[in-house]
Amino acid sequence: MFRKNGAKKIVELLSRLRVTAGHKFTLADYATDDPFDGQIDKEEAKDLLQQGIDRLAAHQDLLYATGRYAVLIILQGMDAAGKDGTIKHVMSGINPQGVRVSSFREPSAEELAHDFLWRTHKAMPQKGMIGIFNRSYYEDVLITRVHQELLKPQKLPDGPHNSGSFWRHRLEDIAQFESYLSRQGVLIMKFFLHLSKEEQKRRLLERLEQTPKNWKFSMSDVRERAQWDAYMDAYTRAIAATATPLAPWYVLPADQKWLTRLMVVEAICAAITDLNLKPMTAPPEVIATLGEARAMLEAEK
Amino acid sequence: MFRKNGAKKIVELLSRLRVTAGHKFTLADYATDDPFDGQIDKEEAKDLLQQGIDRLAAHQDLLYATGRYAVLIILQGMDAAGKDGTIKHVMSGINPQGVRVSSFREPSAEELAHDFLWRTHKAMPQKGMIGIFNRSYYEDVLITRVHQELLKPQKLPDGPHNSGSFWRHRLEDIAQFESYLSRQGVLIMKFFLHLSKEEQKRRLLERLEQTPKNWKFSMSDVRERAQWDAYMDAYTRAIAATATPLAPWYVLPADQKWLTRLMVVEAICAAITDLNLKPMTAPPEVIATLGEARAMLEAEK
Repeated sequence: MFRKNGAKKIVELLSRLRVTAGHKFTLADYATDDPFDGQIDKEEAKDLLQQGIDRLAAHQDLLYATGRYAVLIILQGMDAAGKDGTIKHVMSGINPQGVRVSSFREPSAEELAHDFLWRTHKAMPQKGMIGIFNRSYYEDVLITRVHQELLKPQKLPDGPHNSGSFWRHRLEDIAQFESYLSRQGVLIMKFFLHLSKEEQKRRLLERLEQTPKNWKFSMSDVRERAQWDAYMDAYTRAIAATATPLAPWYVLPADQKWLTRLMVVEAICAAITDLNLKPMTAPPEVIATLGEARAMLEAEK
Repeated sequence: MFRKNGAKKIVELLSRLRVTAGHKFTLADYATDDPFDGQIDKEEAKDLLQQGIDRLAAHQDLLYATGRYAVLIILQGMDAAGKDGTIKHVMSGINPQGVRVSSFREPSAEELAHDFLWRTHKAMPQKGMIGIFNRSYYEDVLITRVHQELLKPQKLPDGPHNSGSFWRHRLEDIAQFESYLSRQGVLIMKFFLHLSKEEQKRRLLERLEQTPKNWKFSMSDVRERAQWDAYMDAYTRAIAATATPLAPWYVLPADQKWLTRLMVVEAICAAITDLNLKPMTAPPEVIATLGEARAMLEAEK
């Protein structure tokens, strides 16, 4: 019985996790774990994910053919929240010609010498493409806000850089940038993979203990746990200042990987569906030439 | 007597031609020809330009060494207004390591597939550099506003694209982008080379008649003259919507080339002076090593 209702449940949950009015946002209202309490089992989740990926692949074909919108998907979350896994498992079924993933870790010297939106704007998807940002310009109001010494290499003009108004300006700059992009035909979706501190601990231990996962382990991830509350505060402020109907945040439970992935694929499908794209048909002057073209092809020796 | 006062006259004139409160702007208040009525002669102008270039070169060294600000110089104007000549004659005395010129003509297919600020943001100067935009994102509210069919290849989302609110949004997007850049340490200066329709005619005829200038002639420049008033209207609206203290426009008389060049060099020198940059000195820990370094160098065999 629950098996048939899985897709519907996901859609319903999604509408609750979509934040479009930031000023009302409180992180405590959002869970990190499975709200279905086992009502969707792993087998069903697997089927639902595959169905979602197939639909997404069809949506992306249409997006590419019509070439009128770009889709920008931003993935943010603490270490081990599942950003890389989500990209791998959701996007592997999609034609890579229409997808480009950009990862933003520590900025290079050249990037630091520019304004903070420069490196991400350069990587902005063109019309017809899905662009995935694994981390993004939001790092400049998250890790940089938690570790304010990271502002120093940005060589900003004189003025207090750790004041409330400094961060408010920076968040306003982001909100205005997104509102501009949206007017330009960029469909923006921002995902916060909301992980519990306990589940992060479990995943980091797994990286320590399982040889195939060792390569992902970093001592700094463990040290950053001491700043957990500061990060949650920075996320809350960022979401509150930038969640709008045209650039919504999705605060997704991330303690179960299968659930995160299902929510991401469903959210993207729903957003592209809302664009109401019409399949391309050839214009009359092209259709008029089809008979002649057929004759030419058949007349070839 | 006038000869000694030339520099002072230029500075005074400049303060009158600097537009920082767009809402009060009327193009008719600004002249296209020499307001000095011959009080500065060609010889004096030549000396003043050379002095200005020498000062600019020194300013640029300091800008580069301190690496805290970028300077963005936007040159806009009708065809034959003197954009290329100004770049050539003002910037040829400057260390090219600290200057980059970007010209924005018709956008490429890749550029059209992105938001309209994309190609210029990519070319934004880094800290320590002077970036010169020969035309800029303003083309998207000038030529595109006069020839609205140019919007078509931009494949914008559905909605009316020739309404007043469409252009108002676009101008707001530009104003917000510039306010963001300024907070990031970009010193923005926008020059409108204000040419009379009569002087343009004379210069275009020169291009037709003088073999060494033929290569610059384009039939479309002549055809565009029919739209002169529409262009002046588009410039007026653009300047009115985007002139602010942190992103001022300079509406410079362009009927005399020597005067335009003099005003541009003087404006840039004045703006960099206002940044009040302090010459770099080595930090104490470097100074402490100087003696040791000298000993090592002298001890070499």
